[in-house]
Amino acid sequence: MERIVLAHGAGGVETSEILQRLIFSKVPPGLKRVEGGVGIDFPDDAAAIPVGDGYIVITTDSYTVSPPYFPGGNIGTLAASGTINDVVMMGARPIAALDAIIVEEGFPVKTLEDIVESMISIFAKEGVALIGGDFKTMPKGQIDGVVITTVGIGISKGHVIVDKPREGDKIVVTDFVGDHGGVILANRLGLETNIVSDVKPLTNLLPVLEKYRPYIHAARDPTRGGLAMVLNDWAKATGTVIVVDQGKIKVRDSTRAIADMAGIDPLYLASEGVAVLAVDATVAEEIVEELKKAGFPEAYIAGEVRKSEKYKGIVLARTEVGGYRILEPPRGELVPRIC
Amino acid sequence: MERIVLAHGAGGVETSEILQRLIFSKVPPGLKRVEGGVGIDFPDDAAAIPVGDGYIVITTDSYTVSPPYFPGGNIGTLAASGTINDVVMMGARPIAALDAIIVEEGFPVKTLEDIVESMISIFAKEGVALIGGDFKTMPKGQIDGVVITTVGIGISKGHVIVDKPREGDKIVVTDFVGDHGGVILANRLGLETNIVSDVKPLTNLLPVLEKYRPYIHAARDPTRGGLAMVLNDWAKATGTVIVVDQGKIKVRDSTRAIADMAGIDPLYLASEGVAVLAVDATVAEEIVEELKKAGFPEAYIAGEVRKSEKYKGIVLARTEVGGYRILEPPRGELVPRIC
Repeated sequence: MERIVLAHGAGGVETSEILQRLIFSKVPPGLKRVEGGVGIDFPDDAAAIPVGDGYIVITTDSYTVSPPYFPGGNIGTLAASGTINDVVMMGARPIAALDAIIVEEGFPVKTLEDIVESMISIFAKEGVALIGGDFKTMPKGQIDGVVITTVGIGISKGHVIVDKPREGDKIVVTDFVGDHGGVILANRLGLETNIVSDVKPLTNLLPVLEKYRPYIHAARDPTRGGLAMVLNDWAKATGTVIVVDQGKIKVRDSTRAIADMAGIDPLYLASEGVAVLAVDATVAEEIVEELKKAGFPEAYIAGEVRKSEKYKGIVLARTEVGGYRILEPPRGELVPRIC
Repeated sequence: MERIVLAHGAGGVETSEILQRLIFSKVPPGLKRVEGGVGIDFPDDAAAIPVGDGYIVITTDSYTVSPPYFPGGNIGTLAASGTINDVVMMGARPIAALDAIIVEEGFPVKTLEDIVESMISIFAKEGVALIGGDFKTMPKGQIDGVVITTVGIGISKGHVIVDKPREGDKIVVTDFVGDHGGVILANRLGLETNIVSDVKPLTNLLPVLEKYRPYIHAARDPTRGGLAMVLNDWAKATGTVIVVDQGKIKVRDSTRAIADMAGIDPLYLASEGVAVLAVDATVAEEIVEELKKAGFPEAYIAGEVRKSEKYKGIVLARTEVGGYRILEPPRGELVPRIC
C-alpha cells in the first residue's frame, strides 16, 4: 500500500506531484480560480480574487515548526511573518489575518500565551487586523505541541504580481539566504551555531514593489525548498532558463558550515524573511539601490533569465571556477517540520 | 504549571475564556476588525471586510475529527460543508476556498485521496473554486492521521447577517439537531447506532436568507457545543433571555438514546448541516414555510427571544411538564475531536 512519506510535505518535487495528483487534477477546470484571478492552476505565493479595480489576495499556511522556539523567533513569529510575506510577494498590502490554532492537551498555557503574543505583536506592528480564527485541542500524544494555520488577506489597488519572469530579467535577492533552514537544521543535528533565523515581515518591500510595479515580473519568498525551489518553479512555469552566479548568492559562513555538515546545498535551505525578484534588466541596478535604502542593505543581483533553444525550464548555477551545474528542484525531505 | 486541557478547545465556556485571555485581550482595539467589518470583537460564524457596497466574508476552521470516516461522511465532507456553512450563515454566497492539509507520515495515500475527493466534490457541486492551500507532513507519531484547515470566502452584495437577535424574535431551527455529535459519540463509546451525521452544505438556505434579509437578525450553525452554545452566545451578546420549548426541539430517538447513555443533553451535541435563525415574529411562520419548500422539510419554531428585567443573557428551556430550567452554556470536553 502506498503511504505518505515526509517528502510529500517538504515543498519540493514530491509535493508538487502529490498536489497535482490528489488535488489540482481533481478540481474542475472552471473552479481552479475565481474568474480573472489567481488560483491553484498557477504556482504563486497566494491566490487573488478580482474586486473592483484591484484584487483581494488570500493565502493560508500551516506552521508545524519543531521545536516551537528557535534562535530568532518562535512558531508565532513565523506564522505572522510568513503570512504577511505571502501577501506582500503578490504586491498587495496585508490588512487582515485569521489564525486556526491546534494545541496538544498538557501544553503549558504560559508558552502558548507567549507564542500567541509574538504572533499578535507582529500583526499589530504591521497594522494587520486579527479578525477571526479557530481554536482546537487534541488529546495528549495525538499532536506534537502546537500547530498554527494562518490566513492572510491583502488588498492591491492595481495588478497583483503574478510570477512570470521574462527573458532578460535580472534575479534580485534581498538578503543572505538559508538562515532559517540553517538554524532549524543545526538544532535538529544537535549542533551549536550562532545562526539566527531570518524570520521577519517584508512589509518594507512594498513601496519598492509599488514604485517599480511594471518592471517586477515575479516576487517570491524562498521558504521550503529555498532559492532552488523558487527559481525552478519560475523556470518551469515559463519555459525559460534561469542562470545564477553561485559566487554572488550570499550565504553566511555559519549557515554554509551547517549545510556542509548535513550534506545539503544551502540554496535548498528555507529563508523566512528574504525576497527573490525577477525584474526588468533596465532598472535592476536601480531597484537594488532602492532596496538598500528601504531596509535591505544586502540586496544584490544573483543572476538572470535567459532564452534557450536547447534547454527549457531549468536552473543553472555558474560555479566560482566558471562551469555550470544544473540546480535541480529539491527532492526528498531535507528537514522535517522546518516551518 | 497551568496546562492546556481538552475543554479549552471544546467550543464552550473554557474556549471563550482562553480566547479572551490569550488572544482577544491582546489585540489592539483598532485591529480587532477591519473598519466597518466584523472581527474578533464579536462572536459570529465568520469575519467580514467591507468592499464597495457589500462585504467579503472570510472564515477558517481546523477539522480534527477522529476517526476520519464516520457514518454520513468523512473529514473532507466535514471540512467543505463546515466552511461553506460558516459563509452562508453570514448571508454571503461562498465563492472560493483554500485548504491547508497536514498528514502523518505513513498515512495511506488512497485514503487521503478519497478524503480530498470528498472535499473537492462538495466544493465543486456548490460552485466554490479551490484557489489555494498548503500541504505539510509530520513524522509518524507527531500527528494523528490527518488534519484539514479550510478557508472559506464569500461575497455579500448587501449587508451581512451579524448575529443580534431582538426581543420578540422567534428562534427557527431547520432540522433535527445533534446527529453529527451523536454519531461521533456512539463511535467513541463503541456503541452500535443507526444515526448518520447530518453533515451537508446549507447553500439551499441562501435564497431564503436573501428574501427575508431585513427580518433575519441572526443565523448560526450549531456545531461544537450544539444549540445550547449558539443560544447562549446570542443571549449573552445581546443581554436578552432566550426561551426554547424543549418539546419542540427535534432530536431523533437514536441520537437521544446515545446522548442519554453518555449522560449528555442532546442540545449540546454538534450538528454540521443545521441552521438556527432568530427572525422577526411577524414573518416567522412564513419563513418556516419557505424553508420547507427550500429543502428543509423539518424546519420549525423552537422558541423566542424575550425581554427580561430580572434575567439577562441566559437561555431557558421550557420542559415538557411546564417548568423552566436554565440551559447553561456548555462546559468541559464532551467529545474530543468531534469536528
